[in-house]
Amino acid sequence: MTDRVQKLETDFRQYVKKIEDYGQALALLAWDSRTGAPKKGVNQRSEVIGTLSSEVFSLSTSAQMGDFLNKLREEAVYAKLTDITRKTVDECYKNFERNVKIPKEEHKEYVMLQSQSESLWEEAKNKADFELFKPNLKKLVEFKKRFVRYWGYDHHPYNTLLDDYEPGVFVDTIDKVFGELRDQLIPLVKGVTESPHQPKTDFLYEKFPRANQQALSIDILKEIGYDFEAGRLDETVHPFAIGINPNDVRVTTKYNENDFRVALFGTIHEGGHALYEQNIAQDLIGTPLASGTSMGIHESQSLFWEKFVGKNYGFWERNYDLLKKHATGQFDHVSLDNFYFAVNQAKQSLIRIESDELTYCLHIILRYELEKALMEDRITVDELPEIWNEKMEEYVGIRPQHDGEGVLQDVHWSFGAFGYFPSYALGYIYSAQIKEAMLKDLPNFDQLVREGEYGSIRQWLTKKVHQHGKMKKPAEIIKDITGGGIDSKPLVRYLDEKYRRLYKF
Amino acid sequence: MTDRVQKLETDFRQYVKKIEDYGQALALLAWDSRTGAPKKGVNQRSEVIGTLSSEVFSLSTSAQMGDFLNKLREEAVYAKLTDITRKTVDECYKNFERNVKIPKEEHKEYVMLQSQSESLWEEAKNKADFELFKPNLKKLVEFKKRFVRYWGYDHHPYNTLLDDYEPGVFVDTIDKVFGELRDQLIPLVKGVTESPHQPKTDFLYEKFPRANQQALSIDILKEIGYDFEAGRLDETVHPFAIGINPNDVRVTTKYNENDFRVALFGTIHEGGHALYEQNIAQDLIGTPLASGTSMGIHESQSLFWEKFVGKNYGFWERNYDLLKKHATGQFDHVSLDNFYFAVNQAKQSLIRIESDELTYCLHIILRYELEKALMEDRITVDELPEIWNEKMEEYVGIRPQHDGEGVLQDVHWSFGAFGYFPSYALGYIYSAQIKEAMLKDLPNFDQLVREGEYGSIRQWLTKKVHQHGKMKKPAEIIKDITGGGIDSKPLVRYLDEKYRRLYKF
Repeated sequence: MTDRVQKLETDFRQYVKKIEDYGQALALLAWDSRTGAPKKGVNQRSEVIGTLSSEVFSLSTSAQMGDFLNKLREEAVYAKLTDITRKTVDECYKNFERNVKIPKEEHKEYVMLQSQSESLWEEAKNKADFELFKPNLKKLVEFKKRFVRYWGYDHHPYNTLLDDYEPGVFVDTIDKVFGELRDQLIPLVKGVTESPHQPKTDFLYEKFPRANQQALSIDILKEIGYDFEAGRLDETVHPFAIGINPNDVRVTTKYNENDFRVALFGTIHEGGHALYEQNIAQDLIGTPLASGTSMGIHESQSLFWEKFVGKNYGFWERNYDLLKKHATGQFDHVSLDNFYFAVNQAKQSLIRIESDELTYCLHIILRYELEKALMEDRITVDELPEIWNEKMEEYVGIRPQHDGEGVLQDVHWSFGAFGYFPSYALGYIYSAQIKEAMLKDLPNFDQLVREGEYGSIRQWLTKKVHQHGKMKKPAEIIKDITGGGIDSKPLVRYLDEKYRRLYKF
Repeated sequence: MTDRVQKLETDFRQYVKKIEDYGQALALLAWDSRTGAPKKGVNQRSEVIGTLSSEVFSLSTSAQMGDFLNKLREEAVYAKLTDITRKTVDECYKNFERNVKIPKEEHKEYVMLQSQSESLWEEAKNKADFELFKPNLKKLVEFKKRFVRYWGYDHHPYNTLLDDYEPGVFVDTIDKVFGELRDQLIPLVKGVTESPHQPKTDFLYEKFPRANQQALSIDILKEIGYDFEAGRLDETVHPFAIGINPNDVRVTTKYNENDFRVALFGTIHEGGHALYEQNIAQDLIGTPLASGTSMGIHESQSLFWEKFVGKNYGFWERNYDLLKKHATGQFDHVSLDNFYFAVNQAKQSLIRIESDELTYCLHIILRYELEKALMEDRITVDELPEIWNEKMEEYVGIRPQHDGEGVLQDVHWSFGAFGYFPSYALGYIYSAQIKEAMLKDLPNFDQLVREGEYGSIRQWLTKKVHQHGKMKKPAEIIKDITGGGIDSKPLVRYLDEKYRRLYKF
């Protein structure tokens, strides 16, 4: 490497590190705001976040950044960079292009619309009044269409939106896998619903004191190998995991004393996200590559631990006594088999975040179809509530009584996050693909779980997924693991076997 | 106000607000680092703090700041500014002058020496080996002397050091009040030590479970009027209170299960600091004026609540039952009078942070005398241990067996904080002056405490001290409250009356 290139690389990495350091401060501010920050400090907190965010935006779109990118992307220079710097250049360039293509004034207008829309959405949802939210939703859709025109797109405008959350995954692939999945899931849901064999579940709702649930959550996180020296567990309203950096990855949960599953499986889920972030390679720190590669791959990790470990029969052979130890007697006369059936109950729900693993993807497919149709101008915002309700009845078998439990239920559109939803279902699909591939290397998977030997499972995931951070794109990760592309069949096989077995149909 | 001045003022305030926003992010990072931040994240955390701190330093010493200050300090302009902007200019100017007068290279060398010295000091203290720390301490003293030459001084070089912690308070005043105080305290300590009338204290050391102490701490903070909607309570190793801004002021404490006094009186102490910060005027937010005016005045507020409220007989008439409710029976057969005597026990200690209110100031006076003598070149670093031990024996009546419990006990010098110690004793002196002055307006003070009517006490303190933040200098606050200057007589009167009464001599 020539001295000139080396100097350029060092300066660029220094510049990027500053942005990343600000990003870590912002991550802590976000964590704090959502865990225990005092109420009266909210306004001041927003000011601080605003100041730091603008600084990050300025640094990411500055003339200096443009100059760095021009020089580093010259073919002869680019070829001489280290892998990490090259991927960093790619990430910064993508971000730079996105941001400089939107006229400043329009971006400002959009940001104002976003912040105004979130509270308006909340009001509309509570009142089940779509008309209240509609004008803003229309504007948000128009903005996103316009932005896509500024950014440009390949084949389909929705591809550009997907690129924010699931880079390298396109509409044609999603159409195919979601279509197959939908057609397989609908009869399965019907089978479960109509089965006379249903679990007894009353003991799920008996009181489980908050402090006991907290102790259980800590034990379970330790059980799956979450490193408390590189993280902590706190309480919040809407649980999340956040990687400030791979050495500081925090989990949050919430405790419902009348339904311990919320905290228990929620903690395992967030713990799965956290294991991903904790195991990212240390040499990516200080670059934008030191976090999960996409929403979908992230979700595959949380779901892997929640579904394939936390809802595994062997997991409860091993941990049912631990649960009983923390509980106050409600499981003493419940057999392991009954307990296992109950926590794997499938039950239709109108609400996505309350739905089971069997119908979850149908909720997502519905949203994907609507978003895509909006972007193609095949439907209008006015038609959304009616189409939503029809699809819900067709896919899940139940119909919302009002828009609060229908089209208004999710926050995402209120901040313009079109293209986000597919990641959730992709996460389900990926997780089952990953599980099938893992079985080839670890055929004794069930035994490992039963014996609490998660070490080799974590190592496998670290090697194939975690360590890479954003060095690999989602499709690349799936390709290297499975030898092929995104495929819904492993998920269908898993759900089909499990629910026919449990519900005997 | 002319348009030009108005524009200048707005731009300057905007610029300062950015520095303050960064400062608030830094405050949160500091709080987090000292409460629950994961161990493995320490290095990354230092990087983030380093990046933000350098940015604050750059902004505070930039050519742009210099330009702002030049223009704003022009007589005609300065006269037209609002009070808040004028004081902000003064603060920024002081800081600017301090920082630009030190050659960059020397400053860097000094910062490196500081960070190296703190761990070296820790090792030396643990090994009770002064020789190990001596070379660094010599360098630190030399740096400080040189810095004082760069900064310049009035009358005495130590005045410039005092200016960092207690602006507007000078060596001649301190010599006078400390001298008087020392001469009054020594015989009092002797009287207490020789008195045959000593408290029974065994019940102080019975087990008081951590969770119960936590609940007690929360109740006591609420009792004195700490606003939990603008703060929170956490656990830490070295307790502190931190004002991120007046709407977010956090308290920390530590729980010793074998000595509940640590958490109880520690929490009241930190709560006193927090009440100060919570009651600073909201319109100072976004300027460097939105915090306590000096270390000494801050300490006067924590000591006021700890000593004049928390160790008041009436406070325990009111709260002894609350304490018993949280405890596990150890006080059931202890009369209120015995309890009160025990928590007000005076007992000589070699260690400043473990010493009682009677000897505390003597520990400080000793340090002040040594620091001043060092700055005057009247003594050398080599002589410190011996002089320390002699003075300790003379003032407190006991002699350290090794330097770990003598000259090496405090961290302050290891980061060059010469001139800091006097603030602690000034805090004691101020608090007693404030208490005497308050009695003129609230002659029923003891009754108010006994009845838990702290509202008028807090209002009085807010009006006279808290609301002003840094708008008033310490001496100005004391002048406006007492009509005079710093005076040790109220403290002596308080201690004399109390300890002669308790120890019957």
